[in-house]
Amino acid sequence: MDAAATAFVPGHLTALFSVHRRGSPERTGSRGAGVALTDGVTVRAAPGDRAVDLDGESVAAVEGVLDALGVDARVDIDPDLPVGAGFGVSGAAALGTALAVNAVAGLARSENELVAVAHAAEVAAGTGLGDVVAQARGGVPLRLEPGAPPHASLDGIPAGGRIEYLSLGELSTKQVLDGDTDALSAAGERALAALRERPTLPTLVETGREFAVEADLLTDDVAAVIEDVAAAGGRASMAMLGRSVFAPGTGLSDAGYDPRVCRVHPAGATIRDAGPTDS
Amino acid sequence: MDAAATAFVPGHLTALFSVHRRGSPERTGSRGAGVALTDGVTVRAAPGDRAVDLDGESVAAVEGVLDALGVDARVDIDPDLPVGAGFGVSGAAALGTALAVNAVAGLARSENELVAVAHAAEVAAGTGLGDVVAQARGGVPLRLEPGAPPHASLDGIPAGGRIEYLSLGELSTKQVLDGDTDALSAAGERALAALRERPTLPTLVETGREFAVEADLLTDDVAAVIEDVAAAGGRASMAMLGRSVFAPGTGLSDAGYDPRVCRVHPAGATIRDAGPTDS
Repeated sequence: MDAAATAFVPGHLTALFSVHRRGSPERTGSRGAGVALTDGVTVRAAPGDRAVDLDGESVAAVEGVLDALGVDARVDIDPDLPVGAGFGVSGAAALGTALAVNAVAGLARSENELVAVAHAAEVAAGTGLGDVVAQARGGVPLRLEPGAPPHASLDGIPAGGRIEYLSLGELSTKQVLDGDTDALSAAGERALAALRERPTLPTLVETGREFAVEADLLTDDVAAVIEDVAAAGGRASMAMLGRSVFAPGTGLSDAGYDPRVCRVHPAGATIRDAGPTDS
Repeated sequence: MDAAATAFVPGHLTALFSVHRRGSPERTGSRGAGVALTDGVTVRAAPGDRAVDLDGESVAAVEGVLDALGVDARVDIDPDLPVGAGFGVSGAAALGTALAVNAVAGLARSENELVAVAHAAEVAAGTGLGDVVAQARGGVPLRLEPGAPPHASLDGIPAGGRIEYLSLGELSTKQVLDGDTDALSAAGERALAALRERPTLPTLVETGREFAVEADLLTDDVAAVIEDVAAAGGRASMAMLGRSVFAPGTGLSDAGYDPRVCRVHPAGATIRDAGPTDS
């Protein structure tokens, strides 16, 4: 094994989605739309016995990645973002682990192969359905076909700029995804179709807000913040699946909140220190 | 129309490729591999009569983009890279124009739609076959299926770091592509298959060098520089289609050359100033 390697994976908030369960984890996933964030997750992998650490806990999707790659390593996960609040921390941990372990162990896998391993581990763990492919792409991803490469199909909204967000607490992704998702998915499909008619950031926020109501995911505290932003002349919506609100530009600040501030992250996940190049 | 908008598109050097001509410009393209570069092209579009300016000249692919989008604009193209030397300046100009004009004119097209418009214009102009889709992706792209989205299929090598390059002069892309490309394409297919067996940056350089020889594209001056880099313990190959050499790390410096220095650009093309967001 080489020296340690570090990967950075952008955060990803989901504005709207539909659930698609198919025969394998690689084909299972979500369609939908969201935003990749400059606030993300740094994952460091080093040679050694297996030890996965995110604030003192392990992460099921990361264990799944190590199992799939057949490699043990020390994996340290350092998130800039709140955990369990709809910002894709578990997907980022899985994808960052795949990239960093590939470098440390000299596996010579392609990016699509590593994305597929991370996506399948995240789906099997029940912690997410679409964050990994979005985090591998960056920007403002539209997930047109579910699953991992080569099954996935993505497009994007050509937009960047400042994003503000505020987390009021956790929502269990697993609990929502394990329930009946038919009505939610029908609402997600309608929202994605509307967004594809006019793929802009303002439309993403609008269709996301309609989706949150129709899918019955909007909590009262989140709804109150969204209303405050609208009253101040801005636009905000809910980050799925968390009790979280996001707004492009200065939407939350203008409404008197004290949000975290980041930007649209134009790139997907990247390996930062790959150690010595292989021969 | 809104205020001016600016897009940045990474440069892209092609290490190896094969030519695939199909029924339409959207399906025509190349397969192959290359590197997106932090040295790139900045494109500014502003409302006004049509005027396309790259060092005082127009660019056929940019005119094609404006025709396809049905928009006139003032388009200023500012390259960090030598023109006609294998760094994808014309593709970058076309893609940057599509992104900037979309923002200025409020067209609300998706990224895939804009990439398809730019790719088709570049193919129709005869100035390139694969730069645009690679420049829309960033990183170290493997182009597995030719053409524009949704026909294109891409993967990537998970690698980053310093890239050095040196341009000895121009080669006419149009002249090579207008000739008999069967032997070149057979060599390109072999090289891509070998690279996919082990998708790493050192393998990209090695397979690229073999391709340059087999495709009979290697000029004597380029070959001499590549040999000097190897003699100094490094790895270099030719950037297609120019009389240009690239090397990861410090390959050219170590051999006593005075190269331009940049890095792998992790992101695809991005819109920088989108003007006011639409409502």
